[in-house]
Parts: sequence; structure tokens; C-alpha cells
Amino acid sequence: MSSDRIVKPAAISGFPEWLPQIRLVEQQWLDRIRATYERYGFCSVETPSVEALEVLMAKGETSQEVYTLNRLQGGDANDARLGLHFDLTVPLARYVAQHFNDLVFPFKRYQIQRVWRGERPQEGRFREFTQCDIDVINVDSVPLSFDAELPRIIHEVLTDLSIGGFTLGINNRKVLQGFYEGIGIGDPIGVIRIADKLAKIGPDGVAKLLVDELSLTDTQVKAVLDLAQVRGGAEVVDEIARLGSGGALLDEGLAELSFVMRELADLPAGSVVADLSIARGLDYYTGTVYEGTLTDAPGFGSICSGGRYDNLAGSFIRRDLPGIGMSIGLTRIFAKLVGDGTITGGPLSPAQVLVVVPSDDRRGEAIATAATLRSRGIKVETYHAADKLKKQLTYGSRKQIPYIWFPPFEDGKPHEVKDMASGDQRPADPATWTPTSAEA
Amino acid sequence: MSSDRIVKPAAISGFPEWLPQIRLVEQQWLDRIRATYERYGFCSVETPSVEALEVLMAKGETSQEVYTLNRLQGGDANDARLGLHFDLTVPLARYVAQHFNDLVFPFKRYQIQRVWRGERPQEGRFREFTQCDIDVINVDSVPLSFDAELPRIIHEVLTDLSIGGFTLGINNRKVLQGFYEGIGIGDPIGVIRIADKLAKIGPDGVAKLLVDELSLTDTQVKAVLDLAQVRGGAEVVDEIARLGSGGALLDEGLAELSFVMRELADLPAGSVVADLSIARGLDYYTGTVYEGTLTDAPGFGSICSGGRYDNLAGSFIRRDLPGIGMSIGLTRIFAKLVGDGTITGGPLSPAQVLVVVPSDDRRGEAIATAATLRSRGIKVETYHAADKLKKQLTYGSRKQIPYIWFPPFEDGKPHEVKDMASGDQRPADPATWTPTSAEA
Repeated sequence: MSSDRIVKPAAISGFPEWLPQIRLVEQQWLDRIRATYERYGFCSVETPSVEALEVLMAKGETSQEVYTLNRLQGGDANDARLGLHFDLTVPLARYVAQHFNDLVFPFKRYQIQRVWRGERPQEGRFREFTQCDIDVINVDSVPLSFDAELPRIIHEVLTDLSIGGFTLGINNRKVLQGFYEGIGIGDPIGVIRIADKLAKIGPDGVAKLLVDELSLTDTQVKAVLDLAQVRGGAEVVDEIARLGSGGALLDEGLAELSFVMRELADLPAGSVVADLSIARGLDYYTGTVYEGTLTDAPGFGSICSGGRYDNLAGSFIRRDLPGIGMSIGLTRIFAKLVGDGTITGGPLSPAQVLVVVPSDDRRGEAIATAATLRSRGIKVETYHAADKLKKQLTYGSRKQIPYIWFPPFEDGKPHEVKDMASGDQRPADPATWTPTSAEA
Repeated sequence: MSSDRIVKPAAISGFPEWLPQIRLVEQQWLDRIRATYERYGFCSVETPSVEALEVLMAKGETSQEVYTLNRLQGGDANDARLGLHFDLTVPLARYVAQHFNDLVFPFKRYQIQRVWRGERPQEGRFREFTQCDIDVINVDSVPLSFDAELPRIIHEVLTDLSIGGFTLGINNRKVLQGFYEGIGIGDPIGVIRIADKLAKIGPDGVAKLLVDELSLTDTQVKAVLDLAQVRGGAEVVDEIARLGSGGALLDEGLAELSFVMRELADLPAGSVVADLSIARGLDYYTGTVYEGTLTDAPGFGSICSGGRYDNLAGSFIRRDLPGIGMSIGLTRIFAKLVGDGTITGGPLSPAQVLVVVPSDDRRGEAIATAATLRSRGIKVETYHAADKLKKQLTYGSRKQIPYIWFPPFEDGKPHEVKDMASGDQRPADPATWTPTSAEA
């Protein structure tokens, strides 16, 4: 009986939810990302969904819209001090500081979790979404090899997910800063923050801001914009050296960028590019920075990003703990591919086999058959009642289960299995039969 | 450089967090639970962490402490209407109602997610924890076969997790209600609610409440307590029939209980028990109910529970959608076993092999070796610098990586691999070598 008052269920803007056949694909994505991260020896970490507000705000940055928790029925003062994490970097910094004595460094961890941002409801903006982060934190300094290993891992992940063509752009903040200083700019960080808007407002917009806000000369503006045009492999280093006057910081940045590009030279042409237009506005990046984009949808924006940072945990512990990390915005990419029809969903059941129930008397045999198949790792649904065979077959077909298993309908008859793709039906032994079709 | 102000990181009461070696075991648990659920053909569903408050409160029950969301920097009125889900049953009901036309029934889903409860901080009480639910929802009626299949699945999961001895207790609300009615009790639901406290307040306490609150006669009290003593297999049905006077509802309940116990008769003796003391206080259960306990720690309380319910989605859709489900309280069990030292943690890295870097010149060879091993599914860390060999070996040993791989240190020499458990070191080819130790 239905109750009288109906609460109409509805999607909540910004909080995605998938039908089972789409969720199945999302799960495959998560499994694959995790498998690749682990193949490189990174360990899993999960942190609570909440952090103390003083932890979330330790950097004094309030640019992210944080959700705080309250108890519906009146909480204590403590609750008001908890907020849902808005990324996985702040929790990592807190985690490493808190468990410093229990970790082995360099600490190589991945973290795949939901994060929350109190964005205003808006098309394509998620308020709850899953990020897949991979970071290395070390004491005092992080070996340069990780600047190349991380994009290699992310490249492998994205290739494995079959999301279509993509480019991982790589830059180095030391190159930008050293180059800007070399042409006499007093506020290189200010220029980086403005240059970061290039994709949004174009070169004219950037030029105007550089003049209006930072009083750059025309020559300086031209050099900044020329630098942002540079794209290519390890050879861009020579091009950049020709554009600007050197300096220790520029040289250091160019050596790092050159090292990373040479290390990644074996990856498919065009999939990893030194791109001097990448600025990553965030203050805390200090060396290599990354930004990935979809080849066919450059306007979609970044699908992954990251970079090298000094001492992110400095708010929590008096040790130098620099790091480098990259993050894949799983939900954004996944939702896009679902939305544009690239991902249409898997089957409606994980089962490879549906065992039919011949009759109430032979129920036990159906259950035993399913148990035998499962003991061999095969995923099996046993049909739930001794319904008419046609009804059982319809159920299996609606759920797109690739094999139907018929236990004996009378004594002395063999088991039979039907391959629904080919229509082929033949005797089979549950103790030895193995699925052969692609779904299996 | 450390900043001046240090925010001391600390654990937040009720929000568990694990070191990597413990997290690795938790992940294995999650993988195994999921694998078993899928082996029975249940599909995965995840829902947003939040629901509209009117959905969470649709039943008018406010017994759970709900966390509501607010935006730190001032939200809109909408935000105040969102709460973190406190279980996975309400979200399931809403999900099934909302996506009714897109699902195949009987809808068999599992859901492994975090839930939140605004409990006051208290030893052993979690405010964020993971539940592993498995439910079947159907239109109009749910086949009885699921009453037996669900405890079979949970039994397989708990056995697979090696948590030690456990008992799945099974009862049937129709038996309780029919029995109570048969001995002239006017408020059987009231008796169920009091009988549910048996484990906490003992038979004397229950007897007192039954007299004080429901004015039961001594004979009725004795019958209620006698029934609660009944434990055993399918044969308890006869014992119960002897204790009370029959009736249609009692007969129906006994038939169901008998069916379930007979179906599960193949499971190890004592691991599944008809236990007439199990009442499950919640109003919405209508037939079979379940409660699992640890044999060695009965006072620890339930490790899993569930039951059959009519029309849980009735608040959201004008269809009869009864269901049956069970839920494993993963975090509670896991934290207990970590706390008492049963779970001591896995290795500190998922890697099976550490490839050492012989020298800067031979870095490329180390990377290529690791790539070859990974392409064959082996999990590999490449050491991050051409450090002294001793330092590289110390790192591998601290992380408990079972094999160390030595690429050639000079031209013409072979690769070698060392099994750290046996100390055995021998030549090996990255294209064919396979790990053999248990860690692999």
C-alpha cells in the first residue's frame, strides 16, 4: 500500500547519479585507474570526507566554496568546525604531517575519493565529484625523476580509458619566472596569474591586463606572448633560450623541462607537449606544471592537472615536505562522455550466466549448479523462482546476461548451456565449462 | 621553509583514517565483498552522498542524527535542504522510485558507500563509516528464494574475510506477531519492540516492561520469554508450534522460516541459526529478519543485519515495491579487528618488484625494464634516483617489496632478481620472469 503523501524524488543539481549500466562502466574506469597507479607502486590512502575547518583554511585561501556540517537536531560547537574536503591535496598535506613518523619517504600515494564544492547549481558544474590523485611527498627535496614519471602514469591511465585523443601539456614555473625576470619584469608571479587567462581571454586580453595592471612595456608584453606561443618537444629549450635573456633560474627551469621532455620522448607524438602557455595560476606551484586537454574538445578545459610544489604541509609540521602531484577529474570527463553518447553503458547485470530453475523440485539442483560455477570464479545469477521458462529467458535477455544455463529438466539428462550471442546450445559440465564470449 | 603558524593536525573523533598498510587490507576487504556480491549477479549502485532532507525524512523518522550541509561563505536557501545520507536504504528507495522505468525487476543491487551520522563523539561510535548493502526490490512481491539467498551471500562474504567465528541469526516477524496474537496479546508490535531489548536488559528486564507497559499476564510473559529461548535449525518450527496456539499468520511465518532454514542446511553447523530472540525493533520489517554476531565477542553486537520490508519506496512512488536486504557494518568490524591486533596490516607498497637504478647513464634501462614487467601485469616501483645501491636496497626493504631487480650494471651482463624472502639471487629476463612468492 502506498502512503498518502508522496515525496517526488528528483535529481539534485550538481550531484551526479548513474543507472546501473553506466555505473558499471564508471567502476571499470575506477578499477583501471587504480590498477595503473598500483602498477607503479603507489599505495592507496583514503582520508575522512571532512577536515577541521582550520585545516581546510590553513593556507588562508577561501577561494573554494566549502560545505560545512551541521547537525539537524542541534549539534555541539565542534560540528561547526568541520567541513567537507574540496580537494585531496589539503587532506594529503595534513595526513603526511600527522602520520609523518609512520610513513616511508619518498611517500608515493594515490587517492581516489569524492570531493565537494559548494558551487552554485549550474550546467556542467559538479558539487560532488570524484578525483583521482597521485602524489609524491618527500623530506627536503623530491627527485626530478618523478616530474617525468607522473605524466607517464597519467598518460597510461588516459590511454587505457579510451577517452579519445588527448594532450598532456607540460611547463615549468621556473622557466616562466626566470624568463620574465630576465626581461626586467618586477612581478613575475603577477604575470603568471594574468598569463593563466590566455585560453579564456586571448592574447589581446592578456596584453591589455599586463599593461593596465602591471605596466609592462610593449617589448615585455610581446616577449610574454611570444613565450606563450612556444610548443614542442625537448627542442623548445633552445627556442626559449633565443627568446629571452638567461639567468640562473631560467637555466634551471630549462634543464628540468628538457629532462622531462627527453624522458617522455618515447610516448606517441603529440600526446605530451612542452607548452609554455600553461601557467597554472595557483601560487603554490614552483617547478614543473601539467595540464591535460582533449584533442577534439579543447574548449572543454583541463581533464587533469598538477605540478610541483614546495612544502605544502608547512602549515601542519615544521619540516620541509615538498611534493609533486597530478589529479584526474574523473567525474567531469566521465559525465562528458556519457552526455555526448560516447559511453552508452554496459550490461544490466555483472552476471555471465543465468541458471534457470526447471521446477520447484529441481530448485536445489539449480542452486548447486550455480554454486559450482561460482566456485570457479564465474558470475552467476540463479533465477528466483520456478517460473515458466519463457519468463526466465525474458529476464536473462532483458539483463543482457550472455549465457543461459539449463540444469537437467529430468533425471538422466545432461546440463546444457546456451550462448545468447550465437544462439548455440550444447551439453556442458558446470565443473569444467568456461565462458568464451567477450563479455566473460 | 615552514610558515610560522602551525595548525596541529589531529584525528577527528568518529572519522576513522588508516595508515597505508592497514588501508591495503581494507581495500582487499572491499574488493572481496564486491566480488562476492557480483558473483551472485548483483549490480553496483552508488548514490550521491546527500539527499534532499524531505527524502531523508519522508518516513517522519528523525531517530537518526542527520548532518546537514551549509556553505561556509553563505549559501542559498537550497543548501539548507540537503543532508548526508545516514544509511543506504533510504537512498535505494528513492533511487528505485526515481528510476523505476529504467530498471529491470527484481532489481538486485549492492551498494558500498560511506554514510554519516551526527553521533556525539564517543569511543567506538563512528560518525563516518562504510556500509556494504545488498538488496532486492521487486514490484508487488519479492520471491521467498531471496530470503535464503541473501544470508547465503553474506555468509560467503564473512567466511571469505576470515573474521573468525560468526553466527547469522534468522527470525521471522510473522512468527513473532502470529505467536503473540495467538496467546491473546493485543499489541504484538509493542511486544516486538520490547523483546528487541532482550540482549541489553535480560529476561527480567523484558518481563518487567511487558507487564508495566503492556499489562501482559504472567502466562503471556512466560510464553514470550520461552519463545525467545528457541534456537536451532529447521526443526525449531515444531518446537514453536508446540509452544503456542496457531493461526494463519503464525503458520505462514513458520513455513517461511522453515523454508529458509532448509535452504541453508548445507552451511557449516552453527553458522546459520534460527534464533527467535531476534526482533529487530524497526517498524518496517515484515517477514524474515537477520542479525549476525561474532562468536567470540557476542557483546560486540551485530556485525550485519537486515530483513524483509514491504513497500519501503511508498513515500516516493505510488507502486508497491517490497524488498529484502542485508547490510554489513564494514567499518565497525574492521576497526575492531585493527584495534584488537587481529589485523596488523599488509606491506607498505603494492609493488612486487623494486627496480634499482644502476647509474644515471643506465636510468633508461631501469625504466625500460620496469615497463616490460608492468606490461605483463607485475606491479613495479622504479627507484627514483641513481643513489648508492645500499640506500636503494634499504628503501625496498623498508617498504617490504618482495623482489629487487638489478638491471645490468655493465654492458654484456644479465639482469638479476633477488627474492628478499629467501635471499636467492639469480639471472632473469624481464620479458618472461614471474614472481612466485606468496606476496605476488
